[in-house]
Amino acid sequence: MNTHARIAFPDLQSKTMSADDAAALIHDGMTIGMSGFTGSGYPKSVPVALASQIEAAHAAGNPFRVKVFTGASTGPELDGALAKANGIEFRLPYNSDPIAREQINSGEMNYVDMHLSQVAPVVWEGFLGKLDMAVVEVSGITPDGDLIPSTSIGNNKTWLDQAEKVILEVNHWQSHALDGMHDIYYGTALPPSRVPIPLVRPDDRIGQKHFRIDPSKVVAVVETEAPDRNLPFAKPDAVAEAIAGHLLEFLAHEVARGRLPANLLPLQSGVGNVTNAVLSGLMDSPYHDMTAFTEVVQDGMLDLLDAGKLRMASATAFSLSPEAAERFNRDALRYRDKLILRPQEISNHPELVRRLGCIAMNGLIEADIYGNVNSTHVMGSRIQNGIGGSGDFARNAYLSIFMTPSTAKGGKISAIVPQVAHVDHISQDVQVIVTEHGLADLRGLAPRQRAGVIIDRCAHPDYKPMLRDYYARALQGSFGKHAPTLLNEALSWHQRYVETGSMR
Amino acid sequence: MNTHARIAFPDLQSKTMSADDAAALIHDGMTIGMSGFTGSGYPKSVPVALASQIEAAHAAGNPFRVKVFTGASTGPELDGALAKANGIEFRLPYNSDPIAREQINSGEMNYVDMHLSQVAPVVWEGFLGKLDMAVVEVSGITPDGDLIPSTSIGNNKTWLDQAEKVILEVNHWQSHALDGMHDIYYGTALPPSRVPIPLVRPDDRIGQKHFRIDPSKVVAVVETEAPDRNLPFAKPDAVAEAIAGHLLEFLAHEVARGRLPANLLPLQSGVGNVTNAVLSGLMDSPYHDMTAFTEVVQDGMLDLLDAGKLRMASATAFSLSPEAAERFNRDALRYRDKLILRPQEISNHPELVRRLGCIAMNGLIEADIYGNVNSTHVMGSRIQNGIGGSGDFARNAYLSIFMTPSTAKGGKISAIVPQVAHVDHISQDVQVIVTEHGLADLRGLAPRQRAGVIIDRCAHPDYKPMLRDYYARALQGSFGKHAPTLLNEALSWHQRYVETGSMR
Repeated sequence: MNTHARIAFPDLQSKTMSADDAAALIHDGMTIGMSGFTGSGYPKSVPVALASQIEAAHAAGNPFRVKVFTGASTGPELDGALAKANGIEFRLPYNSDPIAREQINSGEMNYVDMHLSQVAPVVWEGFLGKLDMAVVEVSGITPDGDLIPSTSIGNNKTWLDQAEKVILEVNHWQSHALDGMHDIYYGTALPPSRVPIPLVRPDDRIGQKHFRIDPSKVVAVVETEAPDRNLPFAKPDAVAEAIAGHLLEFLAHEVARGRLPANLLPLQSGVGNVTNAVLSGLMDSPYHDMTAFTEVVQDGMLDLLDAGKLRMASATAFSLSPEAAERFNRDALRYRDKLILRPQEISNHPELVRRLGCIAMNGLIEADIYGNVNSTHVMGSRIQNGIGGSGDFARNAYLSIFMTPSTAKGGKISAIVPQVAHVDHISQDVQVIVTEHGLADLRGLAPRQRAGVIIDRCAHPDYKPMLRDYYARALQGSFGKHAPTLLNEALSWHQRYVETGSMR
Repeated sequence: MNTHARIAFPDLQSKTMSADDAAALIHDGMTIGMSGFTGSGYPKSVPVALASQIEAAHAAGNPFRVKVFTGASTGPELDGALAKANGIEFRLPYNSDPIAREQINSGEMNYVDMHLSQVAPVVWEGFLGKLDMAVVEVSGITPDGDLIPSTSIGNNKTWLDQAEKVILEVNHWQSHALDGMHDIYYGTALPPSRVPIPLVRPDDRIGQKHFRIDPSKVVAVVETEAPDRNLPFAKPDAVAEAIAGHLLEFLAHEVARGRLPANLLPLQSGVGNVTNAVLSGLMDSPYHDMTAFTEVVQDGMLDLLDAGKLRMASATAFSLSPEAAERFNRDALRYRDKLILRPQEISNHPELVRRLGCIAMNGLIEADIYGNVNSTHVMGSRIQNGIGGSGDFARNAYLSIFMTPSTAKGGKISAIVPQVAHVDHISQDVQVIVTEHGLADLRGLAPRQRAGVIIDRCAHPDYKPMLRDYYARALQGSFGKHAPTLLNEALSWHQRYVETGSMR
């Protein structure tokens, strides 16, 4: 590792130390803002060292837990290590780590699941309290002492500004060619001083390449050389391909009707195998000069960029499989004028999503016959990951699309249910639902109309008769018939699953 | 009625006719965009004449039903008359008429309950189909043929632009001094041509005073002289005053902590007696130079303007009691530089709500122990009114506050329940809940923390033990413990009400 090449500012060279020494600056009860958005750009060594120190403290009978704020999910060296050490008492705004998830769902960890665009403003507002420490991965430090961001921006600008003290991790594994790919907008404010965000195309650069930092706040600089860790994507299976096929047919129909431009509108795509299959499907589509205004750059987007189908993508982070991350790292320079990473309060800003007219494509856990969507709570009570940015995009999108296989757990769970057991996206924010069986275009439909279309087009054949039977009886027996509901059966499918292991 | 004083454009003078003759231009199956937002600015005579013609057609065995789009709710001469004639087959985006409500809840009328900011863009996009006719009340026609709006703007700009034909009602009852109070922004577009809305203060005027209209599209001009019809406000009772008291104490606390400016932030206030009580409470508050960026101007806002506490209010309509409407009409000139009426896609625009940092104050039907809010569906299936603009404001507000008496129907319904039977506002969009018993500040709290605070602070004493018992058992028996839920009891309070007439 060539320290001077990555850390070109002498003041901060002098603050380099081991991860253990840096972690020792963190104490019980602190609130820490960490970098990381999906498995990208999170600190790789200080959280692991902190976890060891927490375990040692616990072994000695001393309390040691911290509050952890991030961009979104992170890697096993952060959430996994700290949760395993039982070191996180409070977590926001998003988690997908399995160990942390167990602690949340067993009632041991308090978790606030937030709209990702709102985290930074909420911290500026101050009611989450003082941020004691920031732990932020960067890819380098300039001769002027500015910070070259890493593979995710997330809330880093906010952590660096708001934290009392800052620990930097400089990761030598990250490509030098990242420098220039970021756009850090410093024009945000609290009301009444807010002004329009001056972005009118996904391509617009409205900020600066580097983070500012007050070097006197930096208490440690730790060098690392470690890869980001994202899960591999599964190769699209027949179900994912069928979903993608229905969606692409719908988009073609909308273009033919003149309701979408010939190059579509900026794409937003949630993380996952199904949305990645849609991106793959776009490789064979007639669309050129497409753009993405989204949270994360996935494998499929690199393919679309390489093929010249996608002109550029704006996001806050990479979410690449290990193979794609290697490929990106080899060729990062080639992508530098086609990718822009922004703070998540900009990548997900409702003002921008509405203005640009994004086509939002997100996954779900279940939808009900009226088009309400549950993205987060399995059987209504057990959190899977979190709402993430789906609410930022779905409400303001030009087209809000939700996609899912029609069943889960080998057919034992239906993704279409009489009533969702938790709501993340109200029916007003759900315009299209797609499963491998078909696509329901819900725009302009009243609840009773929606029920027919959703059951007919989206439900798995095994569950269609059950849904039709429920709906027919609800039409008879409901208190009101605007959205017919049998209150004592509405959640019975979930209860049956809990009791028997199947909704059937 | 002095026709020439109100209709100064000769081309349109020549098109004056009776309401019956104008209504005869409307046929079975048409889609009609009508003016009207709350009980203001809706057409007073053509819908009544249309209802008669529909009744006559039905008596003769002929089908005659129309699709009706409006700004929001209207008056009895529109929704009431047409629903009574069984003349509405499809209705959007909001209804509060009792006759129409019965038809919706009996399954006879299809009703699409929409975010009010999204109606106009959805119509421009075209998937709701062609708008055959606009029926719009104006307060006058200028010598150039422009239209002076009436007491609501709503979606009128869109109806006038998009409809194939236009019927105008010129209402002599409306004050001449309305002219100059409106701000019609013509800078909206569909993506990819959208640009920032150039409004940074509630006071900003960004458009023009009058509607444009292609006079060749106008097929009839009907003169009327009839008052708007809004319901009187009830004088605040002890419950409303207690709610207002808790809220004002909270606002004072936030100002003292430096989290709100000394003149607060632009107020948004839902329609109703409780929110009106809060406005009354602000009369005795220490705040000066306040502003409102909201949907409707209510009685309490006129008082605040008169007292010099409120500098100005931006809205899309008036919603004044008959007494306040008389008072406004006498003195409209005095309010002209303090009130701005805008199209509802601007008054409710998420971009502007977020930028201005509104303090959103809305009512609810029920909230659950995790802070999800149901604003619309009684017992989950029977629609009361609709989501209206509450979603536009709640998600993007600086502070999103929901207020309600802790019980309804003489204590037989608890406004705090184990699980709401329908969700309009997800917990992320609900920061504060207030009842007469107290205020729950939910910011930064995880679900289990929220449950404790909501039960302790907001629930009625009669229901507290039941809620505590439910929650304690859910903590034990729930599938997941992130948001503990007993699926077979979650909606049992509603079921009990349906069966026994009480949740107790």
